[in-house]
Amino acid sequence: MHDIYKHLLRKNDKKIIMMVFDGLAGCIHPDYGATEMQAAHIPVMDEMAAKGAQGLITHVAAGIAPGSGPGHFSLFGYDPIATDVGRGVLEALGVGFELGPNDLAARANFATHDNAGILVDRRAGRPAQERTNYLCKLLEDNIKIDGYQVFVLPGRSHRFVPIIRGKGLSDRLSETDPQVTGTGIPDVKAMDPGAEHAASIANEFIRQARAILKNEAPQNDLLLRGWGMLPDPPIETFDRRYGLKAAAVATYPMYKGIARLVGMEVLDSGKTFEQEVETVRKHWDDYDFFYVHRKETDSAGHAGDFKAKVRELEACDPLIKELWGLGPGVMLITGDHATPTAIREHSFHEVPALFNGDLVITDHTMAFDEVQAGSGMVGHIHGTDVMPLLLAFAGRLLKFKS
Amino acid sequence: MHDIYKHLLRKNDKKIIMMVFDGLAGCIHPDYGATEMQAAHIPVMDEMAAKGAQGLITHVAAGIAPGSGPGHFSLFGYDPIATDVGRGVLEALGVGFELGPNDLAARANFATHDNAGILVDRRAGRPAQERTNYLCKLLEDNIKIDGYQVFVLPGRSHRFVPIIRGKGLSDRLSETDPQVTGTGIPDVKAMDPGAEHAASIANEFIRQARAILKNEAPQNDLLLRGWGMLPDPPIETFDRRYGLKAAAVATYPMYKGIARLVGMEVLDSGKTFEQEVETVRKHWDDYDFFYVHRKETDSAGHAGDFKAKVRELEACDPLIKELWGLGPGVMLITGDHATPTAIREHSFHEVPALFNGDLVITDHTMAFDEVQAGSGMVGHIHGTDVMPLLLAFAGRLLKFKS
Repeated sequence: MHDIYKHLLRKNDKKIIMMVFDGLAGCIHPDYGATEMQAAHIPVMDEMAAKGAQGLITHVAAGIAPGSGPGHFSLFGYDPIATDVGRGVLEALGVGFELGPNDLAARANFATHDNAGILVDRRAGRPAQERTNYLCKLLEDNIKIDGYQVFVLPGRSHRFVPIIRGKGLSDRLSETDPQVTGTGIPDVKAMDPGAEHAASIANEFIRQARAILKNEAPQNDLLLRGWGMLPDPPIETFDRRYGLKAAAVATYPMYKGIARLVGMEVLDSGKTFEQEVETVRKHWDDYDFFYVHRKETDSAGHAGDFKAKVRELEACDPLIKELWGLGPGVMLITGDHATPTAIREHSFHEVPALFNGDLVITDHTMAFDEVQAGSGMVGHIHGTDVMPLLLAFAGRLLKFKS
Repeated sequence: MHDIYKHLLRKNDKKIIMMVFDGLAGCIHPDYGATEMQAAHIPVMDEMAAKGAQGLITHVAAGIAPGSGPGHFSLFGYDPIATDVGRGVLEALGVGFELGPNDLAARANFATHDNAGILVDRRAGRPAQERTNYLCKLLEDNIKIDGYQVFVLPGRSHRFVPIIRGKGLSDRLSETDPQVTGTGIPDVKAMDPGAEHAASIANEFIRQARAILKNEAPQNDLLLRGWGMLPDPPIETFDRRYGLKAAAVATYPMYKGIARLVGMEVLDSGKTFEQEVETVRKHWDDYDFFYVHRKETDSAGHAGDFKAKVRELEACDPLIKELWGLGPGVMLITGDHATPTAIREHSFHEVPALFNGDLVITDHTMAFDEVQAGSGMVGHIHGTDVMPLLLAFAGRLLKFKS
């Protein structure tokens, strides 16, 4: 199908905004008898619902709670099952690291083991940022593996991203994070016969790191997961696939990483939603497509804080009006998955998708929420249909045959 | 799936009507604040909506505006992407020409070039019908290509259908219509290595035609597109695939052509919708399945004439009652694609499908339009699901396994 769409592309000056509230959707919270979207007072988005058309998105498949990676790949039109990129890759790209084809990246935590080598803290007492920065530099400067170069990028608090660069690596490696304390920490194992060498290099990295961290308790150990290398062949860019010059307006590393991977330019977007909207306005003439990401709805979902999630939607609502006021040909407001505060993790629930634009037929829905979206005219769509629909609503697809 | 359906077929005397309003669906017209279907006063179809069930059809895939060919193939249950038939074939079949397996057909215009060979009129001053008939006979009688037979069928006004019959032809040929004036007219090029010979024959046809038309200005040139040969292997007929003796009631060549290609008998249907309905009545006992096609809704869409499209639906409405009054087991009213007057071309918008019959469960929709169809009980279906549903609603499918 991608080849068919590609042959139908035409350019025009209609711009596309894809507004992604991370973990947007919820389910009924027993204490409140409503979803967060239902409870929120969001007159701007409700008015857009009244003028636009809604549907519900399944990002991967029925019943599946998507991770942020598959949730986003699906929205961007890339098969979320076939597009298999390790989290380490997304984190490395997200902090702006220029990942190359021989780079093996992982997502790492500093951790604490006791005298018997038993894992006692998976987050090493959540070290201060300066401490993490110091330890990452210590590792990067002192780990020496013959024929390989090592980078250690600090993340937030206990998190960091180790990258090993050299020949013959593979990301078909097991994770060392047992996910629970009170147990030992396993070695890296090869998941494919071709990954034996990479496993030995990864284990050598860990051996040296432990030696260096020996006297740095409580940061005396490390846990590695989300092994990844850049996809080969590379992922087709937004420009090639859709003929769109695309910009990403996001504040968290991973989402910047996904956006970079599909060829978006990541704009310097500040931290607040106000700054993000201002960033879109500033660059309005420079791009065809704007991906705008807001993380806090998901964070509130994970925290189980119903009121915080409602507050976040309400706080963003007036600024949505400013985004819409920029005059895109079509604007979509949706999420990459559900994170209901009643569940505190990603869930499989379908996510509302609200479309507005000249070619969008006004349906009968009057508010932006899960139930109204479920009876909207857009129906139940797969995430990978979102980009074709946005192109079509923007008048950017020609007729298929005569 | 086709084999599975085929094993479940059973015959009965329940008739099926598929009423296709070409380009039926629209989108909100800014001057009227409604779609054409919403604006039309169509009490008969609204009553059928109140008694029947509606849904929305995607003929090809999300965001894709189907050509008339793919739109119809999809409704008839043939994969609209895999079923790749050149427009020339459909036009030739449509005017009743008995196309054979060695025939290469195209869709052609008479055109005008100036003294410098520059295309100045893509329609050659829209010649009168007698003139076109005369020129086609002139070409047919005088073009001589060794080993090949040539037919030149007149179409309406400037249009005609050349057919070259002989060994070793291919339809993998480029079109010569530059779509704009003020430029030269390119030769035919082979799109596959195996089509080199066909390209040379096609170019010889053009060379001789130009020589013959030399002094016939403004009809001194020709443009060729939509090259096609009959599919090999042939398309499975309606009778074989569905066990249905099928009749087509259509007034335009192309739609007759598609119907012939899938094995329908094309009835002599006059020109008006009244005559079309009368044709169905006259042949009611002779067929199991009636495809009834009405072109004018699409023409009004292309013309951007909101009121004309509304008027056309309103004019047809009372006659729909007569079709329904014939007592089919199931009747579907739908379109092959959308042609919104606000866009003036085919669009990607889903098309309402209204089912009525004994086995159709009455849903809550009360009017026949895009938004009501979008909340109807049939849901969002692919065009290729229409025929299985019609067979089932007519009680013509057995249970699958015990």
